Amino acid sequence: MQDRETLINLAKLVRYFIISSTTAAGSGHPTSSLSAADLMTALFFGGFFRFDPDHPEHPNNDRLIFSKGHASPLYYALWAAAGKLTEDDLSSMRKFGSPLEGHPTSTFKYTEAATGSLGQGLSVGVGMALNATYLDKVPYRTYVLLGDSEMAEGSQWEALQIAAHYQLNTLIGIIDVNRLGQRGETMYGHNMDAYKKRIASFGWKTIVIDGHSFPEILNAYEKALKVRNKPVMIIARSIKGKGVSFLEDREGLHGKAMNRDESAKALRELGAVDTSIRGEIARPKDLRPHPIVPGKSTELAYLADEPVATRRAYGNALVRIFPSFPNMVVLDAEVSNSTYAELFKEKYPERFFEMYIAEQNMVGASLGLSRRGKIPFVSTFAAFFTRAFDQIRMSQYSGANIKFTGSHAGVSIGEDGPSQMGLEDIAMFRAVLNSVVLYPSDAVSTEKLVEEAAKHHGIVYMRTTRKDTPILYKNDEEFHIGGSKTVRKSNNDRLTVIAAGITLHEALSAYEELKKEGILIRVIDLYSIKPMDKETVNEAAQSTKAIVTVEDHFAEGGIGEAVRSALGSFAVPIYSLAVRKMPMSGKPGELLDYEEISKNAIIKTIKTLL
Amino acid sequence: MQDRETLINLAKLVRYFIISSTTAAGSGHPTSSLSAADLMTALFFGGFFRFDPDHPEHPNNDRLIFSKGHASPLYYALWAAAGKLTEDDLSSMRKFGSPLEGHPTSTFKYTEAATGSLGQGLSVGVGMALNATYLDKVPYRTYVLLGDSEMAEGSQWEALQIAAHYQLNTLIGIIDVNRLGQRGETMYGHNMDAYKKRIASFGWKTIVIDGHSFPEILNAYEKALKVRNKPVMIIARSIKGKGVSFLEDREGLHGKAMNRDESAKALRELGAVDTSIRGEIARPKDLRPHPIVPGKSTELAYLADEPVATRRAYGNALVRIFPSFPNMVVLDAEVSNSTYAELFKEKYPERFFEMYIAEQNMVGASLGLSRRGKIPFVSTFAAFFTRAFDQIRMSQYSGANIKFTGSHAGVSIGEDGPSQMGLEDIAMFRAVLNSVVLYPSDAVSTEKLVEEAAKHHGIVYMRTTRKDTPILYKNDEEFHIGGSKTVRKSNNDRLTVIAAGITLHEALSAYEELKKEGILIRVIDLYSIKPMDKETVNEAAQSTKAIVTVEDHFAEGGIGEAVRSALGSFAVPIYSLAVRKMPMSGKPGELLDYEEISKNAIIKTIKTLL
Repeated sequence: MQDRETLINLAKLVRYFIISSTTAAGSGHPTSSLSAADLMTALFFGGFFRFDPDHPEHPNNDRLIFSKGHASPLYYALWAAAGKLTEDDLSSMRKFGSPLEGHPTSTFKYTEAATGSLGQGLSVGVGMALNATYLDKVPYRTYVLLGDSEMAEGSQWEALQIAAHYQLNTLIGIIDVNRLGQRGETMYGHNMDAYKKRIASFGWKTIVIDGHSFPEILNAYEKALKVRNKPVMIIARSIKGKGVSFLEDREGLHGKAMNRDESAKALRELGAVDTSIRGEIARPKDLRPHPIVPGKSTELAYLADEPVATRRAYGNALVRIFPSFPNMVVLDAEVSNSTYAELFKEKYPERFFEMYIAEQNMVGASLGLSRRGKIPFVSTFAAFFTRAFDQIRMSQYSGANIKFTGSHAGVSIGEDGPSQMGLEDIAMFRAVLNSVVLYPSDAVSTEKLVEEAAKHHGIVYMRTTRKDTPILYKNDEEFHIGGSKTVRKSNNDRLTVIAAGITLHEALSAYEELKKEGILIRVIDLYSIKPMDKETVNEAAQSTKAIVTVEDHFAEGGIGEAVRSALGSFAVPIYSLAVRKMPMSGKPGELLDYEEISKNAIIKTIKTLL
Repeated sequence: MQDRETLINLAKLVRYFIISSTTAAGSGHPTSSLSAADLMTALFFGGFFRFDPDHPEHPNNDRLIFSKGHASPLYYALWAAAGKLTEDDLSSMRKFGSPLEGHPTSTFKYTEAATGSLGQGLSVGVGMALNATYLDKVPYRTYVLLGDSEMAEGSQWEALQIAAHYQLNTLIGIIDVNRLGQRGETMYGHNMDAYKKRIASFGWKTIVIDGHSFPEILNAYEKALKVRNKPVMIIARSIKGKGVSFLEDREGLHGKAMNRDESAKALRELGAVDTSIRGEIARPKDLRPHPIVPGKSTELAYLADEPVATRRAYGNALVRIFPSFPNMVVLDAEVSNSTYAELFKEKYPERFFEMYIAEQNMVGASLGLSRRGKIPFVSTFAAFFTRAFDQIRMSQYSGANIKFTGSHAGVSIGEDGPSQMGLEDIAMFRAVLNSVVLYPSDAVSTEKLVEEAAKHHGIVYMRTTRKDTPILYKNDEEFHIGGSKTVRKSNNDRLTVIAAGITLHEALSAYEELKKEGILIRVIDLYSIKPMDKETVNEAAQSTKAIVTVEDHFAEGGIGEAVRSALGSFAVPIYSLAVRKMPMSGKPGELLDYEEISKNAIIKTIKTLL
């Protein structure tokens, strides 16, 4: 721990870096960085934050998430003040190819999670703190720097309630209450009590301080470290632009870098800065989680004549494969009896986290768990993942390793009606860079694909079906990401039907009926929608007259469009059957007919094309 | 107002309808309906709720939103008890074609907003209450029935904070604290104080009652109507399944209908029910908002040689067209100085609502405003609409008339990096049934399309660009939903480039350079991505050798796939340039080149194809 004078000098150095780097970049957020400079300098160099910069992945390193990602100049300045970035590095900030991006991403090696979409960091912190307390059982702490403006995001309150529920006393938030948002004052300005009473009511210990008083800041961290059974929020009154008189507490200066003249003037105000000093970060103890030895998954034993819902097979698979993937952890948003994540919960309650009806925080927490080496399997209704699209989107910039499973896909859920029908989930997950999108049609392929998902590092989405569906495959059949199964094929196939999930069963029924009339069609089970088995699809396009895609999903961004894209510039007629009318309540079969994605619709389309 | 005994008899009748309708349907949520039966019977028939059932759109009708949409059997039972549905109608519940869907949708004429995705109704109520207090200035009240489980959703706390901020004392929430969620106990069970202190800390008046005691319920409504300057939350302790001994307070009974035997037993427990009685709903006073006479929009006057960002043109358009569309109202999520909604705020502050960084509530509130006849124009960064995808998705089932505008689309925003880049917004909004997706490339087309959006009833999304772009069109040029502009065309066009927004300018630069080399290409401005001008696209496909699409958006669900779908089964080679590499910080031009969606990439692609 550095003495008070050294801390003051380091804070000055940090401010110097903030000012010079944003002016060099010609953009960025100096004022939002300056308000939190004292808070973060004290954390970094006051002996509280324990981190081994040479081993960023050390399991007992404390974690620091900049939820207010636009304060990235401060984040980089701290690492420069710690001697881990040079002034040259800082001058590359926001430039093409630099790891120091406008908002932190995982291209910078110390970034815990990409931020910049506000209100997400606390959830990531919840995941990391869950890991510390319940999984690794290693006493590192997770710090989250929050902006006051972003406290308006509902996701923050999801994170606050869950952190208190799980008594995450290793989680410490710091709100930089600088009063000003982007376009003016926040809802509560400098009303510190407004924050205190709200956050305390959510079950947190709160400590209100002056964010520019080192004695108060140091005292707050000391107190925070002593709290048991509760997460702690340090609520710090601060001044936006603190340290530069003509920036302080002024509206209209959010996200504005100073020009060279203004910057020179600001640096003169700072006074003499010793740019040669560097701060010392305390090192963690070398504590590590108990090593886990992987075991072996059991084999499948589905009976060919007993239909099983793919959602149930998902639950079965979690239980079955866990011994092979002991880093697995399962989260669900209060619907585990529908998604069948409850099968895992019953068997391995210590690896299951009930996240209640708060999908945004569930996804954010999963990212935190993933960043600490876990493999989170996260489930809710397919429709309700739309609630967390921003968190899903952001996780792609953090190198996430998360497995999402959405049950109750499509109109085939029946009577519950459109609010519960996942009809845009394929479009949503396809639009995530390098994502994998899987849609199995029977229990065997579901189980195998859950296993493939666990092996794959990255974002995987699996779509499951509500109702029981027949077993199509033998228990030893193999499936892989990017694969497909040509389930019906002859040398005389007139057309090819490409389907997945529930509609594959409709396609197979259509096949049987057409066959009776002497019409042969090819049927492809496109269980891996992204990446796609382009070779098989292209071969079918070349050897049959046309392709018909059938999906229980809106037409836009779904299987039909994915197939069209996979065909690239190869010109072949394609017909896409998809949900195109206002969905409603009814029996599954009625709804498949109504939306023209049923056996009958497939037969009708094929006959038109012959 | 009915006397206490009549209320008790009506509550019995309501329970009778709940039990018989769910048993007839064979599915549904009787237990979640029974817990709130007394609360809602007292509201409906106790003289508090004022509504003219023959004129559901009367501007002074009170509004009642069932945020816990799965309690739809209760909702329908209330209307049956009011004599507005027959027992026959009730027996159609959840059946194909019935307006009484599994969760309420706008196919039932009294539904204020489709619910069933939890945690959305309070935001809709905020919109309706904003309308009552600040726009129509008519003293109707908005009641929202909430479940305890759904209070875990962050969106609820967004709604709570904004309602208090705007002092919406006409908004009255009722939480049915029945202790049990779908798969077990909620986070707080029957801890009424947990709800009370959290909600009070957010600035609401709270009233805690026994949800099955008519004196307490009636007293609570009376008190609620007297509160000034604050919204009111009635927090009611209730019993899930109340009234049927073998359902009461039991786990494992969520969303389970009774079979005929159980139902008969339950009805025996209810005792004698007078099925002939009907309740009386109080009528509202015939108060109406001051009529507004539309004026006339002014003409455009952009100068051909002065580039203007389309986001700024959006702000200009709002100001310009408001006189013609006096029902317009503008909402923004704390970035109005970036989206340029601030131009409208400056001119018409009384029609602008600052919604802070809480996008979910902003969208929900917009739906509430839309259902009260307003035309909400809602803006934030394109990327941040992902935060509200569930609310956007649900609004399509409520007949929403909302205009969304997302600024800062694509990698062309530059230095701020991927967190701020809208790269999946087209995919997201395309996947909404009957949505319109617009992407203008210059100020003139932006202004004209904002006007077209205002005229169109439905969900419209417009994507705007951060940086200044040249004016391409004359001030009197016309644009329409479903249109396109062929901006370069000859009889010798070798290929067609289809672009929109920022990439249209890249395509035009490519055109100039290729022309110098004697290569002519057609260039289409696809400003209306959905619906699309299929005729022009198909004509281009037929008369040129291939189509190249270029977009500043991820490949999946974007312009390339939309064009492929528009070509239907017409086989033509298409090449799609889109964002396919990990986006990063940098200069706009560098990033367009890096992602291969720039002029250079277009030229390179075309030369490969020739």
